[in-house]
This record gives sequence, C-alpha cells and structure tokens, in this order.
Amino acid sequence: MKIVIVGGVAGGMSAATRLRRLMEDAEIVVLEKGPFVSFANCGLPYYVSGEIAERDALLVQTPASLNARFNLDVRPFHEVTKISPEKKTVTVKNEQGIFEETYDKLILSPGAKPLIPQMTGLTKAKNVFSLRNVPDLDQIMHALENKPVKATVIGAGFIGLEMAENLKTRGLEVTVIEKAPHVLPPLDEEMAAFVQNELIKKDIRVITGESAQSFSEEGKKIKLTNGEEVISDLTILSVGVRPENTLAEQAGLATGLGGGILVDEKYQTSQSDIFAVGDAIVVKQSISGEDALISLASPANRQGRQVADVIAGLPRTNRGSIGTAIVRVFDLAAAATGLSERTVKQLGLNYQVVHVSGKDHASYYPGASELTLKLIFDPKKGTIFGAQGVGANGVDKRIDILATAIKGDLTIFDLPELEFTYAPPFGSAKDSVNMLGYAAINLAEGISESIQWYQLKEEQQKRQLLDVRNPKELANGRFPDAINIPLNQLRERISELDPTQDYLVSCHSGLRSYIAERLLKQHGFNVKNLDGAFALYKTVRPEELIYE
Amino acid sequence: MKIVIVGGVAGGMSAATRLRRLMEDAEIVVLEKGPFVSFANCGLPYYVSGEIAERDALLVQTPASLNARFNLDVRPFHEVTKISPEKKTVTVKNEQGIFEETYDKLILSPGAKPLIPQMTGLTKAKNVFSLRNVPDLDQIMHALENKPVKATVIGAGFIGLEMAENLKTRGLEVTVIEKAPHVLPPLDEEMAAFVQNELIKKDIRVITGESAQSFSEEGKKIKLTNGEEVISDLTILSVGVRPENTLAEQAGLATGLGGGILVDEKYQTSQSDIFAVGDAIVVKQSISGEDALISLASPANRQGRQVADVIAGLPRTNRGSIGTAIVRVFDLAAAATGLSERTVKQLGLNYQVVHVSGKDHASYYPGASELTLKLIFDPKKGTIFGAQGVGANGVDKRIDILATAIKGDLTIFDLPELEFTYAPPFGSAKDSVNMLGYAAINLAEGISESIQWYQLKEEQQKRQLLDVRNPKELANGRFPDAINIPLNQLRERISELDPTQDYLVSCHSGLRSYIAERLLKQHGFNVKNLDGAFALYKTVRPEELIYE
Repeated sequence: MKIVIVGGVAGGMSAATRLRRLMEDAEIVVLEKGPFVSFANCGLPYYVSGEIAERDALLVQTPASLNARFNLDVRPFHEVTKISPEKKTVTVKNEQGIFEETYDKLILSPGAKPLIPQMTGLTKAKNVFSLRNVPDLDQIMHALENKPVKATVIGAGFIGLEMAENLKTRGLEVTVIEKAPHVLPPLDEEMAAFVQNELIKKDIRVITGESAQSFSEEGKKIKLTNGEEVISDLTILSVGVRPENTLAEQAGLATGLGGGILVDEKYQTSQSDIFAVGDAIVVKQSISGEDALISLASPANRQGRQVADVIAGLPRTNRGSIGTAIVRVFDLAAAATGLSERTVKQLGLNYQVVHVSGKDHASYYPGASELTLKLIFDPKKGTIFGAQGVGANGVDKRIDILATAIKGDLTIFDLPELEFTYAPPFGSAKDSVNMLGYAAINLAEGISESIQWYQLKEEQQKRQLLDVRNPKELANGRFPDAINIPLNQLRERISELDPTQDYLVSCHSGLRSYIAERLLKQHGFNVKNLDGAFALYKTVRPEELIYE
Repeated sequence: MKIVIVGGVAGGMSAATRLRRLMEDAEIVVLEKGPFVSFANCGLPYYVSGEIAERDALLVQTPASLNARFNLDVRPFHEVTKISPEKKTVTVKNEQGIFEETYDKLILSPGAKPLIPQMTGLTKAKNVFSLRNVPDLDQIMHALENKPVKATVIGAGFIGLEMAENLKTRGLEVTVIEKAPHVLPPLDEEMAAFVQNELIKKDIRVITGESAQSFSEEGKKIKLTNGEEVISDLTILSVGVRPENTLAEQAGLATGLGGGILVDEKYQTSQSDIFAVGDAIVVKQSISGEDALISLASPANRQGRQVADVIAGLPRTNRGSIGTAIVRVFDLAAAATGLSERTVKQLGLNYQVVHVSGKDHASYYPGASELTLKLIFDPKKGTIFGAQGVGANGVDKRIDILATAIKGDLTIFDLPELEFTYAPPFGSAKDSVNMLGYAAINLAEGISESIQWYQLKEEQQKRQLLDVRNPKELANGRFPDAINIPLNQLRERISELDPTQDYLVSCHSGLRSYIAERLLKQHGFNVKNLDGAFALYKTVRPEELIYE
C-alpha cells in the first residue's frame, strides 16, 4: 500500500510514524511544502527572546532521521498543488519542476493559515509578520537584527501574548492591540483581566476594543479604528487562523464551518481514500455537540495517530475535542478548558458560575502563590461546561484535572470526591478543585445564592451591599455604597441590619462573605453572595472602586 | 441540637465549621485532648529543618478565632475518657477534673495513633520520638537543642522519609531503617528504587529488609534483626499508624479491619447518634471494594464536611476512597494513587503494567526534567487499577490527573483522549499520561507484548536480549548476554538475527525498543519488549549490569 501524507508537522508526522509501526511494508511518502518537518511550532515565540537559545532545538526531527528510523520518504520543499481523486494522484511542485505522485490512501494534514484581515497598506508594509513556522521565525529574527525599538502585536490571543512577552523580554517597547473588549478572547472578561493587568504591570501597552485599520509609511504607522496612530518598527499579525483548505476545495472535498474540511468519525473526507486531520478539519466540540475548529497541537497529534490506526484497520474513532489551552504571560499562567461562560450563554444553556481563589499549595508552606479558578456548570444536572484558571503556579494542573473530569463526565457532585496528592510543597488538603465542587454544590442545592461581578451594579439597586472585611482591608479599595461589618463581629452586631432590607455580601476573596451569607440566611435575611468578591471585582473593574 | 465532636483537627474541625454554616442554632462543642486544634499536621516535618520557619504557621486556627467566626465552643486539653451511648453523654477530663457532657449527636474524629512495635528497651529509651502532633514536634525540637549528630528514622514511609530529609537538611547524619524490602512500601519496588537512590545520593544511609529489634544505652544503641548495631542520638519511630479506637471500643462500637471504627454510608457507627470520620474509620477502597484504613488528610476533611451535611439532613454518602499520596524526597517527588501492582497481584486480578518515561514539559524548552510513570490496568476491560510516578517536577499533576481518571471510571482507552494544557513551559503535545494510554492500548490490543523488569532473568533463559541503543550509550552500563544493534540500523542488519530465535528488546527508556519490537514483529519475529528498558532496570538492579 502506498500512503501519501500532505503536511509533515503534528498530525502528518504522527500519522506517518504510527503507520510505519503498524505497516512495515507500506510505502509512506510525506510531502511538506516548507523546509522543515516535525518542528516545534509551539516553541517558536520563545526563540525570539532567546529563552530557547538554539534554533536546532526547534527542529525535532529531520528527513534523514525519520528515514533511518522509520523508513519514511519525507520530502520538504514539496508542495502539493492539486489532488485528482478519480486518478488517485497528487500533483507536486518542487525545485526541479512538477510531477504526479500516486496514492492508495491520502492523508491531508495541511494545518491552518494565518488570518490576514483586509487592511489598507498591508501589502506595502515591510515590517509586518505572522508566526506559524520556522521561515516566519527566521524573517522575524532577521528583522530584529535592525534593532527595532517599538513593536506592535495585533491580536491578543495565545500566540499574540507569547510574542508580546518575548519581544518585551528582548527589550522592545511593545503595544498589544485587540479588537475584542479584552485580551485573550477565549477566556471570559474577568479571568482575562488578570492577564491584562499583568501585561500592564510589565509595561506593555494594551489597547482593547480597537483594531488596526490601515498601515502607512511601509508599515511604520498603524492607524486604529479610533483614529489613533501607533508607530511600529516591527509588527506581528496574530489575529487568528483558518483552515488551510485550498487543496481540499480544489479537489471538491466537502467543507464546513469556516471552510474546515468535513470528515467522518474515521477521518475520511467526502472522497473515499482521502483522509484529513489536524487544524484543517471540522471537529465536534464534545461538550456542546457543535461543530468547531480547534487549532491545538494535542488533538492534531492524536488525530494523526488515530487516522493511521484507521488505515491499518484498528478500531478507532474521532470522539471530538473539548479544547484545552494555556498561555504563560510573564509571571502568570492563564488556561481554559471546555466552553467559556460567553459561549454557554450564547448556546442558551442553563448555567451557573463559581469562582474560587486559593493557593497553589499549602498556605503554611513557603512560596504559596494565588490561584483563581472559574467553573461554569449546569446547576440542575451538575454537568461541567468549562473551567478557566489564572495564577503564578499550578494553573496547568488544575485545568488538566478539570479537563479530565469533563472527559470523564464527572459532575460538580464528584469534584469534592477527587483525591489529590497532598504534601505541603504540592497541594492542600482541600484543593481548589475540591473547593470549586463544594461551592458549586452549595449553589446547586440552594445553600448559597450568588451574583456575578457584572451583575453588581444592577443588584445594588435592590440590595444593600455589606462588606465583611476588616476595616484596615478597606484601604485597598472599597465598593461605593457598601456598609462594613467585619465577619467576626457580624453575630453580635446583627441588630444593626434591617430585616426588611435585602442584602448582598462581599469580603476579599469570597470565603468570608459565604460564611456571612450562611449566617444571615439562617437569621432570616434575604441575602446573596458576590461571587469572587472584592478581589475579583478589583481585577476587572478597578476604576469603579473608591480608594482613600 | 447539641453536637459534640471529639477531636479538633482535620475531620473534626471540618465537621464543626460546616455544621455551623448549616445549623446556626446548634450548640457545637469540640473536645480536643491536645493543646491545639486545626493544626497543620502535614507540615510538622518541615519545621524540623526550618523550611517552615515559624511555629505559628502550623497553627492554622485557634479556639478564639473559631469562636469569633463560627461560634464554636472549642476546648483544648479536654480528653474524652468515656462514652455512655444509652445516656448520650461523654465523660471529659480536663485540668480541673472530670465532668459529663451531654450530646444529641456525637462525632468521633480521634484520628490515628503511632504504631509502637514491641521492642526491648524502648520504654527506657530517652531519644525515641513519634511525630503526630505539635507536642511531639516540640519534644523533637527540644531534643535537637542538644546537638545530636546521628539520627535514625525507623520506618521509611511518607512521614519517615520527610523526617529523614528534614533532619539531614538540618545537618544530622541520618540512617533510615525499613523492614520491607524497599523504602516507601506503598509504592512498588522499582518506583521506590528511584527514591532509594535519591536518599543514597543525598548521603542518607538506607537499610532495608531489617527492623530494629532492641534499644540499649537509653536508646543510643539500636540493634537490628541482622545483628548490626546502629548508634543513634535521636530516633524517629515512624512505622505506621493504627486507628485511635480506645473510646469506640470502650463504648461497644463495632470495629473492623485493624480496629478501625465501622460506619455506614452516612458515617453512623453501630450506635445511632454516634458518627465517626477520619483516620479512625474503616473505609471502602473504591477500586478493590475491600475494607481499608486510609490515613490521609484529604479524605478526612471530606468526611468531616460530609458528616455535617448528613446531620443537617443533606443528601450525602461516603463513596469510599482510592488513596492518593505524595512525598518529596530532596529533589524528587514520588506519588501513588489507587492500588499498587503488589496489591493487585495479591487480589488475584488480571492486570498488566506499563512504564512510560518522559519530560515534565516540552523537551525543547529549558529546564525539562525526567518523569517516570507506571500504570497498572486490566488489559481486557481497560480499567485503571492504580498509578505511580517519580520525578523532579510534575509528578503531582500526573498522579492527580490519573486519580481523577480513576474516579471518573476512565479506562486506558480514554487516556489518549485527554486534552491537557500545552505550552512549552507546562507540558507536551503528547503528555506522559496520553503516552501511558497509548502504550497500555498497544498491550491490550496485542500490538506490543512486554515483560517486567523482574521477569528479565527468567525470560533471558528463553529469549535473546537485543539492545537497540547506540554503541556509545553502552558505556552507561549494559545487560549481560545482550547483543547490540542500534535501532536506526536494524532494518538493514535484520539478516544478522536468527529467525528461529525468540527475542527480547531493550533500549534506554523503552521508546526505541517498542519501535524495534514492532519492526521485528512485522518481519515475523517472536519478540517482546522489556518495559521501562535499561533505565528502569538500572534504577532497581544496578548491580546486575556490566560497566566497562
């Protein structure tokens, strides 16, 4: 059997090596239009700052090493320009010319290509780059040799923020421009606010809610939608990707959402003997059941291996993806799995949200750092729709645990049951993930009622806000129109409250306010808890607080 | 309602505070025989070295703080000496004398007590200590003021090893004596071997397979079962714990395994209105379904909260425990969840084992460190029985993920589906947990066949061992009676192998040998893979290898 694979990075190369382990006699040809196969695309931004010092470290495998070990015919600089499904051939262009290659099975793993918005002057701009592969990186490194001073990153998604950090670490003045109302659009606003604050703290200029409209002076000047002009010596365009579907469309393969290639559970396209994997295909978001485009390394690698299994006759199906991602932004990590609150709301699902803040390990052991987790769940069935986390340490662990819980169909009622490794350097007897479960169950069972930060102003029309922090904590900022009774005095001072008044309680992080809520509820008060409390509100809306 | 709680640490105090949040009007009395409640027992060893510098950091709550916030009547130095179930009273001894306290509901959370083996001379020994609470710690700190030089830790379990490390960090010469054939008996031998090697590397003397038989010279001399005498200025006895069941037995409560208090799913003992939680109770090991004693902070805290819910009328049941634990031993962490291979074998379950070694994050990103994971699973159904891990970083994360997978009834077939946070500083596109799944599925589906390290000698009687490392790697040691063909030459040199001979393949860590196994299998050879390969074998049986 002769198997031709188009694209030699994550999905394609996983397919090729697995195929060899299953089909020693097959002829396996990998056609890659670029100069490199199997490179570490997720590592590219870190080479910009020198954090990854050796360019060779990014080149995980070479055609020679893949041939020696796996007897693969790996051909860089080979661009497939056409598929002829009826003849079962692909047309290939290389330095020598154009030729045809036959196949028995064809696997497409072309990946995604950067989204390039329509912007006046972009074609004349000489300092605007995308970053998807090693040649892109080489271009950026070359441009950096001219010692640019001001850099602009357009698009504050995962890669955009990695580029912003690495350019800043290299010593450039960095401006980030994001069209959405906040950086990191895959996260919800209040969680992204932690990242936004960290960027500002690290002296990065952040412009949100605006986009770049036009370039002038060969790209040196970027005009924004609000009329402002940003001077930029080096610009990274990172506003997203879309499926590389040129070949697929030309071959008449069915495509769907955003032009993604449609495949069945066995990765087969609308043409038999043509399979597709990776960023280019439409997948099922397994929580919502909706079609989705998920450009992540982990699903691409899995799909590549699975399509090899399918071709070799093993029982494998694509069970969909939930989408789990993380980004380090200076001293902070931010991660998400599953659906965001915004998506859940758009889907019209019945949901509730809870935020928990805690430490990454036992607070009495040195070096504990703050961690904030958000859980979006169905309060009736307990289904977990998604989770997000921010913090200096341990965010990856908690989101990985929650991603596993989602895959295992665990509900909020199971989260307290999870038994984690606990010794002081590693965790807490009640981990933040357990606490998320306890807090969500309290909401589901009506033991606690909460409002979200964005509901505060509206709720304050109807309810008196009671801040149960200690008076000296108010120096860090306080809510307008709040009264203050420290939690530890609340029982004895309860007569100061008006039984005919509805209340809303807050403290610093939400733990004391929940205790106050329970106390007041049991004394007959109509009371709700401000989820995430003062700390979360200050993160996302610092300008609305009073500082004295 | 008046609720009396015996024991004011993990389970007891979790029950008390949750009860108050649910039952504002209840009278809640916590009787603690020791001087402190709610202290950080897992932090105690770290105070010995000064890593936790402030003794106050260990005292999480005080009776005053608990009273102010939760209106709890917390009484240290109050020892309950008797329960009278028919009268619904407890007899309490404090400094002033003896009195009776009535209860409507009684919660027992007495914890576990150190196992003190019968050893000649122990009662006369003046330098032998256990470590379960703050007074124990104070005694040890007092003994350390006399500048002991030689310390001995008897029992190399989790706490024993933490004490060994912290005493060493403090500058003492430390000997560890373990009766079992290896340190960390909850782990299997080859995984514990990583820890044993780390202890030796850090200049700790490790004696296994021997126990302390007698003490002489007021404890200065410890005689071992092999006749050896160990000189010890300070000795920590840490050979395990057993349920503190004195009160329960005296009250006629039913007890079971190891004297643990028997409770139903609602934590009720054999006497109505008497409940019990924490280290003192018998729980169901939820994987094996067997009775178990699990002395860990996480289940104790959960049980305390759940018993409060039960008393308050909320729907809560004890769903059992799987047992997840971790220990840091100098630069290494070692963790386990679920059942060990030894236990699975004892239970007569059909199982297979796979080891995977990888990096804690992308190998091309600086600072990646080695991580070895072990999975014990049912090759038919794919059920995960247990997992163990060792490494410098990221062990807690992987074992927490696997603990979550076990709780979610995920099988080996689900592990590749797990989508983890991946950016170079945090993980890999194919995480070691995914790889465990891939490797286990290969075994389950017969794509790969493996043997374990302890089967090597026997298998070598029947099979020729083929080492596919590169010749220069053999300088790190090599197997006796192995032939060497580097993997990348195997296809072209396959004629050097004898088709009538059965083979066994090994490399450094198991990845290349698996590729070699697949290659040879497809060429018609009868071949098995040495799981964990040379690196694992060298860890557990270095003396059986040849070094030139």
